[in-house]
Amino acid sequence: MFEARLVEGKIFKQIIESIKDLVTDANIECTEEEIAIQCMDSAHVSLVDVTLSAAAFDHYRCDRNLSLGFNSANMSKIFKMMNPDDVVVMKAEDNGDALTMMFESTKTETIADFELKLMEIDSEQLAIPETPYNCTIQMPSTEFQRIVRDLQVLGDTCQISCTKEGVRFSVTGNIGTGNVLIRSNAAAEKEDDRVVIEMQEPVELTFALRYLNFFTKATPLSGHVIISMAPDIPVMIEYPISETGHIKFFLAPKIEEDAD
Amino acid sequence: MFEARLVEGKIFKQIIESIKDLVTDANIECTEEEIAIQCMDSAHVSLVDVTLSAAAFDHYRCDRNLSLGFNSANMSKIFKMMNPDDVVVMKAEDNGDALTMMFESTKTETIADFELKLMEIDSEQLAIPETPYNCTIQMPSTEFQRIVRDLQVLGDTCQISCTKEGVRFSVTGNIGTGNVLIRSNAAAEKEDDRVVIEMQEPVELTFALRYLNFFTKATPLSGHVIISMAPDIPVMIEYPISETGHIKFFLAPKIEEDAD
Amino acid sequence: MFEARLVEGKIFKQIIESIKDLVTDANIECTEEEIAIQCMDSAHVSLVDVTLSAAAFDHYRCDRNLSLGFNSANMSKIFKMMNPDDVVVMKAEDNGDALTMMFESTKTETIADFELKLMEIDSEQLAIPETPYNCTIQMPSTEFQRIVRDLQVLGDTCQISCTKEGVRFSVTGNIGTGNVLIRSNAAAEKEDDRVVIEMQEPVELTFALRYLNFFTKATPLSGHVIISMAPDIPVMIEYPISETGHIKFFLAPKIEEDAD
Repeated sequence: MFEARLVEGKIFKQIIESIKDLVTDANIECTEEEIAIQCMDSAHVSLVDVTLSAAAFDHYRCDRNLSLGFNSANMSKIFKMMNPDDVVVMKAEDNGDALTMMFESTKTETIADFELKLMEIDSEQLAIPETPYNCTIQMPSTEFQRIVRDLQVLGDTCQISCTKEGVRFSVTGNIGTGNVLIRSNAAAEKEDDRVVIEMQEPVELTFALRYLNFFTKATPLSGHVIISMAPDIPVMIEYPISETGHIKFFLAPKIEEDAD
Repeated sequence: MFEARLVEGKIFKQIIESIKDLVTDANIECTEEEIAIQCMDSAHVSLVDVTLSAAAFDHYRCDRNLSLGFNSANMSKIFKMMNPDDVVVMKAEDNGDALTMMFESTKTETIADFELKLMEIDSEQLAIPETPYNCTIQMPSTEFQRIVRDLQVLGDTCQISCTKEGVRFSVTGNIGTGNVLIRSNAAAEKEDDRVVIEMQEPVELTFALRYLNFFTKATPLSGHVIISMAPDIPVMIEYPISETGHIKFFLAPKIEEDAD
Repeated sequence: MFEARLVEGKIFKQIIESIKDLVTDANIECTEEEIAIQCMDSAHVSLVDVTLSAAAFDHYRCDRNLSLGFNSANMSKIFKMMNPDDVVVMKAEDNGDALTMMFESTKTETIADFELKLMEIDSEQLAIPETPYNCTIQMPSTEFQRIVRDLQVLGDTCQISCTKEGVRFSVTGNIGTGNVLIRSNAAAEKEDDRVVIEMQEPVELTFALRYLNFFTKATPLSGHVIISMAPDIPVMIEYPISETGHIKFFLAPKIEEDAD
């Protein structure tokens, strides 16, 4: 028996919205400590890693480990029926073939419950190596979203270069070139407005804007985003969820054909 | 000569918006007491019945009974040019072939007038039998709209079952099942927020969600909706218009192939 | 060397938005006194004339006259990346093949710079004759926009007739006819709300609504629009830009086949 109640139910909805364009089918792995979703996108280019610890929930019970295989488009359809203020309760039997999702309105006398059919999905649990990144950037998540959305107009790939002074996003395309420089600003009053750069040495990596744009679907989950980079290894783009969870995206850099 | 002036002109616009997706052509029947529109939808599945009594108008004159045949898409196009605060005046000659629609701005020095071509439409005046319903539900119109819109994602037909405790809307489809329960709540402070159930015995009927969704186009006309049901006869879904009119939709229930 | 800095940078963005659906390629003519864009639309039916005097800019330098040939769709793409509050700086070398556009955020620590490739465009400098118009209408630009947008639903051409009492916009089409009369109202409190008519004699001209609608893309640039007409010559539709510029559109009237 798995049962979890989340007063701020929209977090769950936003997680599914964040991954549904990247991932067709996935497992929710439920354990005593947490629920987790971990999978490659459908083109096997990027990796998504979601964790919500049991402490994030108002009520949490998981008698034995469960893998709940779901179709993300279908789960997203059901979450469409959720109001932003609804409390969400998720339930699954140990050997059931359905996930019960309940939305309790906090404003009206309405309760909705749905049975989503579950499916068997090959669970390829991926070990994400603990990597030492030599450059970490914290910046407002909406600013990151805007930059990668805007630059997409100019070209397909974006170079992210980080120095102590700031982070530069650069694109070259048919109609011209564009650079957006966001300067270090660790002293901003609101935490989410801060631009904090921690680095050992400058890093410069190139990524497919298409994927960076997919990742920014997670923007509603967090006011800031943390971008961790090191040469030749995948970038990690993390959106912390409250204080008890996160959604992380990993994407390998492009190898530049002729570096000069 | 027919002439009617409505200070809250947007009511007329909203009535046409409510029926234009259901009904292609219809007659406005003008008499000394009221104007009325009554017709089947284009597929002859549901019935629409609109009445605005002469008392609803700020000025009303109808020398002899008139049938004004109009195309609802064309009338809707003309209402698109109306501002929400405009006063509407409608005029027709006894033997004319056009309806004059005037929109007087209450905010700027603008007056717009339009001549809509009228047409002959076979007027099949339908006698709606006075039916004893054994179950009547009053609920917020926006809540009803949201439920039938949301449930459409899961399937094509919706079961409405009513007990003293509340009303349940249920859908079964490919991706799973869904139930929305709205509980009786006759004591809500605002009248439009109340859920009031009056019934002799529980009723359970099944309807095409497509039509229920058409009907909810009338939501802007009324804060609450009244759903009247009895076994084996068409449901009546009524949106009261101020205190001097209404728009009612009638839809036959689906006969379930294997009832248990 | 050309360099111009505009604190209210969105004016430049709005100018490009105003003309980009009409004009594919055009030159920005830079002189010591002003920058100007003047060109026919792609179908050679209407003429656009934009001027921003050097005084409109916070910093302005133009060492020698330059023609900067640009593609309006591409420039519009770059302006999409501008925030509404950004300061805009434009720079071009005397013999360069690119225009540098810089957007400086006034709210965050972000600076964006873009290089837009320039192109050679045959510069057909058009002498616009000083015409004595015998009828000039000033009206709210949003009202003009709404009228020509709304009337498009009824037909393709619109008659504008002006008398001392007001201006009438008339359309006749398949579903009926429509007239919108906007009355002279020179005493309105806010200048942009005024309807001011100056005329020697009544004028009545017919225009393609499609083009009038293109012109109203300039609405965000000015609270009021000035329509100048005289028989048999092109109408001039002017949107003043602050006190140091304007965008003017010219369109020849339609010759009516059978005037009565």
